[in-house]
Amino acid sequence: MAGNTFGQAFKITTFGESHGPAVGVIIDGCPAGVEVSLEAIQHELTRRRPGQSKIVTQRKEEDQVAIQSGVFDGFSTGTPISLVVYNKDQKSRDYDHIKDKFRPSHADYTYSEKYGNRDYRGGGRSSARETIARVAAGAIAQSMLRQAGISVTSWVSQVGPLKIDESSPNFDLDEIENNIVRCPDAVMAEEMIDLIKSVRKDGDTIGGKISALITGVPVGLGQPVFDKLHADLGKAMLSINAVKGFEYGSGFDCVEMRGSEHNDLFVIKDDQVKTTSNYSGGVQGGISNGMPINFNVAFKPVATLMKDQESVDKFGELALVSGKGRHDPCVVPRAVPIVDAMAALVVADHLLRSQTDRMDLFL
Amino acid sequence: MAGNTFGQAFKITTFGESHGPAVGVIIDGCPAGVEVSLEAIQHELTRRRPGQSKIVTQRKEEDQVAIQSGVFDGFSTGTPISLVVYNKDQKSRDYDHIKDKFRPSHADYTYSEKYGNRDYRGGGRSSARETIARVAAGAIAQSMLRQAGISVTSWVSQVGPLKIDESSPNFDLDEIENNIVRCPDAVMAEEMIDLIKSVRKDGDTIGGKISALITGVPVGLGQPVFDKLHADLGKAMLSINAVKGFEYGSGFDCVEMRGSEHNDLFVIKDDQVKTTSNYSGGVQGGISNGMPINFNVAFKPVATLMKDQESVDKFGELALVSGKGRHDPCVVPRAVPIVDAMAALVVADHLLRSQTDRMDLFL
Amino acid sequence: MAGNTFGQAFKITTFGESHGPAVGVIIDGCPAGVEVSLEAIQHELTRRRPGQSKIVTQRKEEDQVAIQSGVFDGFSTGTPISLVVYNKDQKSRDYDHIKDKFRPSHADYTYSEKYGNRDYRGGGRSSARETIARVAAGAIAQSMLRQAGISVTSWVSQVGPLKIDESSPNFDLDEIENNIVRCPDAVMAEEMIDLIKSVRKDGDTIGGKISALITGVPVGLGQPVFDKLHADLGKAMLSINAVKGFEYGSGFDCVEMRGSEHNDLFVIKDDQVKTTSNYSGGVQGGISNGMPINFNVAFKPVATLMKDQESVDKFGELALVSGKGRHDPCVVPRAVPIVDAMAALVVADHLLRSQTDRMDLFL
Amino acid sequence: MAGNTFGQAFKITTFGESHGPAVGVIIDGCPAGVEVSLEAIQHELTRRRPGQSKIVTQRKEEDQVAIQSGVFDGFSTGTPISLVVYNKDQKSRDYDHIKDKFRPSHADYTYSEKYGNRDYRGGGRSSARETIARVAAGAIAQSMLRQAGISVTSWVSQVGPLKIDESSPNFDLDEIENNIVRCPDAVMAEEMIDLIKSVRKDGDTIGGKISALITGVPVGLGQPVFDKLHADLGKAMLSINAVKGFEYGSGFDCVEMRGSEHNDLFVIKDDQVKTTSNYSGGVQGGISNGMPINFNVAFKPVATLMKDQESVDKFGELALVSGKGRHDPCVVPRAVPIVDAMAALVVADHLLRSQTDRMDLFL
Repeated sequence: MAGNTFGQAFKITTFGESHGPAVGVIIDGCPAGVEVSLEAIQHELTRRRPGQSKIVTQRKEEDQVAIQSGVFDGFSTGTPISLVVYNKDQKSRDYDHIKDKFRPSHADYTYSEKYGNRDYRGGGRSSARETIARVAAGAIAQSMLRQAGISVTSWVSQVGPLKIDESSPNFDLDEIENNIVRCPDAVMAEEMIDLIKSVRKDGDTIGGKISALITGVPVGLGQPVFDKLHADLGKAMLSINAVKGFEYGSGFDCVEMRGSEHNDLFVIKDDQVKTTSNYSGGVQGGISNGMPINFNVAFKPVATLMKDQESVDKFGELALVSGKGRHDPCVVPRAVPIVDAMAALVVADHLLRSQTDRMDLFL
Repeated sequence: MAGNTFGQAFKITTFGESHGPAVGVIIDGCPAGVEVSLEAIQHELTRRRPGQSKIVTQRKEEDQVAIQSGVFDGFSTGTPISLVVYNKDQKSRDYDHIKDKFRPSHADYTYSEKYGNRDYRGGGRSSARETIARVAAGAIAQSMLRQAGISVTSWVSQVGPLKIDESSPNFDLDEIENNIVRCPDAVMAEEMIDLIKSVRKDGDTIGGKISALITGVPVGLGQPVFDKLHADLGKAMLSINAVKGFEYGSGFDCVEMRGSEHNDLFVIKDDQVKTTSNYSGGVQGGISNGMPINFNVAFKPVATLMKDQESVDKFGELALVSGKGRHDPCVVPRAVPIVDAMAALVVADHLLRSQTDRMDLFL
Repeated sequence: MAGNTFGQAFKITTFGESHGPAVGVIIDGCPAGVEVSLEAIQHELTRRRPGQSKIVTQRKEEDQVAIQSGVFDGFSTGTPISLVVYNKDQKSRDYDHIKDKFRPSHADYTYSEKYGNRDYRGGGRSSARETIARVAAGAIAQSMLRQAGISVTSWVSQVGPLKIDESSPNFDLDEIENNIVRCPDAVMAEEMIDLIKSVRKDGDTIGGKISALITGVPVGLGQPVFDKLHADLGKAMLSINAVKGFEYGSGFDCVEMRGSEHNDLFVIKDDQVKTTSNYSGGVQGGISNGMPINFNVAFKPVATLMKDQESVDKFGELALVSGKGRHDPCVVPRAVPIVDAMAALVVADHLLRSQTDRMDLFL
Repeated sequence: MAGNTFGQAFKITTFGESHGPAVGVIIDGCPAGVEVSLEAIQHELTRRRPGQSKIVTQRKEEDQVAIQSGVFDGFSTGTPISLVVYNKDQKSRDYDHIKDKFRPSHADYTYSEKYGNRDYRGGGRSSARETIARVAAGAIAQSMLRQAGISVTSWVSQVGPLKIDESSPNFDLDEIENNIVRCPDAVMAEEMIDLIKSVRKDGDTIGGKISALITGVPVGLGQPVFDKLHADLGKAMLSINAVKGFEYGSGFDCVEMRGSEHNDLFVIKDDQVKTTSNYSGGVQGGISNGMPINFNVAFKPVATLMKDQESVDKFGELALVSGKGRHDPCVVPRAVPIVDAMAALVVADHLLRSQTDRMDLFL
């Protein structure tokens, strides 16, 4: 039983290998009447695209998306929406030297053992190129959420030791797309960019963190007891390549806190129930409470180095993995649209799922 | 579309409210031939049970489990296994005073808004009493894993600011069940117990962290791309009451690391492929690589305090939530068997799912 | 991957063996606000109960149902509803003589081969006693449908060669519960009853047919392309013990018809789109069109005879299966509430599923 | 919650409208190691293709398939297999005249009401063109089944009143592909062809029946209690356009039979358990018993006539639907590969699902 489908009501199934003919997705369950714009999808793919700046991989991939079904006169029809991106830059020879080798901290070894028959070209299915499909589908989820007044924003909040301070006067979410590292603090962004350049110069890579904010979520999304809203957000994030951790609201900091400090007190504000603090991160008992939803995602340093590394091959022999190719020194700048996409897919799914919570919603 | 089912091949569906007649579970997909012992299930429930020590809630719940189907002559038959625990200590009057009030950082408000019609007695479905069903089902998953040579162990690694050091000479996993806080460091356990007692004396509560280790997992479990092994573990943990964060392998520490430091180098040891370090946490590309799987889970401080707190009620009026009842000052000692159960359920599910990865496995 | 769950949005999972402690069901996805009455559930179970008349099995099973969760103050709360019926009449000795034998046209052989470890007592999981769980869950689905103005009715339309004529003046759906064979034609009912009695006297059994009518279904239920409304109805019916065929609308008669005769012409009646004929059976393109939905289900003669039959046992030896016990000579009178239940479950599921067809339904 | 996915372990999701850019499918869950040949897929599509003979629609659609992922060196890799057929013959103007009209016994009205926003070109998603995706995916399922020794064959057994007699000396399954109506009786085939031609000359259409045989199925496929093998076959068949009925084994004939006649007696033959008759149709208790599986499927006469028909339009006005275009006078000759495909998909799914029935299968 494979695992290439995500979501229950707004459901995506992705396909494609990094060096196969195409990467794509079928969205099943998008309601009729969602505005679908090729430009909006392309916009998100362009934010994810290699070669977009000096601090990301210089591979040239245009990633032009085509809509193959499910859209008529600019709106979804309720039938499956198929999106495809054909692979252009399939430099397979780049990968011949690692055909039988297991690159450290890549999925070469595990795929080989699991399936026997591995497409070794550039990571095959384990390549982050698969996330094209997620970003494309996520753009449609975001369109649906916009129609419902919900907005998802994410940004780079840390690169190596450099963290932003959300209380700093420089912190401004409108700044995110103004710098190539996608940090909402312009001053810190410069430091991060310098760090990434310096890491690249060393032939090395570095980790990072992305933070996200979802606003406008109505009270009541999330399904007890397993499909809690934050549990599905967590799974969504952990399913992105290179992610090692997820926390929401107070996150790991809650461990050292006392209940008297951590509890979010309810108050009435503008005739609505709100909380004075938001350690709950907008989710209580797995269900959105109307406060902003926030979470953090930890990304490991990219495993492909521009340095030689000792390893083994599929014959059990020692093998040198040499540092070649065009790779990202730090994954987070390009991962921001992926986090946006996955978060939007989760919320879209739960928005649909919640429509049958109560008889009085539809009778 | 509700969310009370977990797993795809080894699939559980739970039911029950804290003050309804019963809590229980149906396991669908347990293969025939798994040893099922009432004692083993009861043993796990007893580890979770209230009143087991001085640092947990003093509610008296016996939590006697009964097997209703799917087991014959001590082994699973391949048909659904139903397990039930009848609620004994249903002191509903304890809850009348909070019938219309929203307790801070509880799920009262979100359930009320979501469903309209809330069972307000003791948290109803949002009560951690639901985890009885998970622990019972998890005991059978653990039995199945034992037959496959896989073992799951988890323990309390932090309470408030008190963390254990895995490199300490006192660290010993065999110690876990020897102290009431379930910490593998006997010296630190005493400190943790003292801290929890002192927090309780203050009418307050405190957060904690549980760490887990899964060994004996064959290479190849986990399904790309969404149902990565660690993504399903993450969702499983995040679905447990009070959990705010999940990390595996290097976790959030990876953010500050460089690739040259973080990569796990492959070597051949005893004719097997191993890695010299294990920042990957036993999972690469979402698939187990044969190394031990490890992860951490952050638990917030319990929201029920023995102190009065200001809040609002369902009529939008100010309401005082008074500190009453018998509650845990710190959730982690009793959450250890829950983490064990959820981890076992995930691995059992993926063990089954991987059986169809390759034609040569069954032809 | 087992198959004990039915439905996607209104989802049931059943458990229980004929001679185990209990049979039951969890309903996951019943919206909050559905009226749930123990009496209504019991009423349906009583229609299915053995011993209810002279033409059914004389086994004495009271089949008292209990609600274990998900209902508060007479209405569903949105959380899982668990229903259980404890087995009373567990005369296991009745079955010792067939412990190792494969009864002809029963599931003894296939279960034995599939699982290795069979609960041989009275058919175990393959017993029609499992349908108690379906009928109980179906009663709640029927309650939900009533609130939505939808009604499901089914009846015995044929026993052996005796068929009713829907155009007869005696045909009256209100008659169904007035006779023990559940035939809407009182005159034919008497003939059917006589036939069943005579077949029983021979130690033999006989087949039958059930017809069903669903009215009040809004236009738009059913999901293209696989989960067509009639395809899910068909699967539901074919999953009932002893069913060999399903047809809807014109059914198998369509084979001999021409398009010019078979097409249902649209007209406007009372400002609504209707069709002049209903060969479509209320479903077009898999989606309900507002006309009554009708279908037929074929039930084979019960396999347990009051005659000796030659067979083999699990050791590959010849074995005589002797005719013992208390069994139905014809299954259809007691199968009517099962058909009702399964039909109601399908329509309830699709009523929920259709709530997310269009953005304008919930925005 | 949409319904474009079929199967649980061998799972397909299809997309595409008749006059959109493409029709296609993602297969998720095909094990690694299945031989995948473009020619074999194309072969099945060619059997389904319009314009293949004088008795089918004369539309010219080449239906060239492309593999977009999941196949490497001629074998499946375990990752999703994406197949696409681009639409060539998109004569949209053919459909402008029915843009707002509801064609009788088509899905125009139900889609319009369900989704609001209908792609009216040639039926859109409700077009039988969607079955291209099923046939393509089915070809890969058939390849997998061949590796497992299982074979699926189906044929036209009735057109209008003309039925074949399986006991006739002319009956020969090898004959199926030798005549354009796909009937295994060459003599009857001629009569059927003549009938279809004559019906077409009348501007009319006619119904038909397809029969199928699956051999080599091991004992044990099918999952109690809902996902019985025949229940999933039934749903698969009923999900095909124009199908009105499904029966297996004795089918509707069982209604008139007695148990003493209908029971299949077990015997030992060649050291294997067999039955002397096969009214069970190879399935007992929902599980394959090793005997051949057989079933019948009823197809209604095609709804598009070459005659004018009175109808209504979406404004509630009377509207004349005129007979235009190139359509099939009888659907069964081209439906044979669709039945093959859906049957293969069901058996492939259950073959995978059964791999976790027993611990001793994989431990």
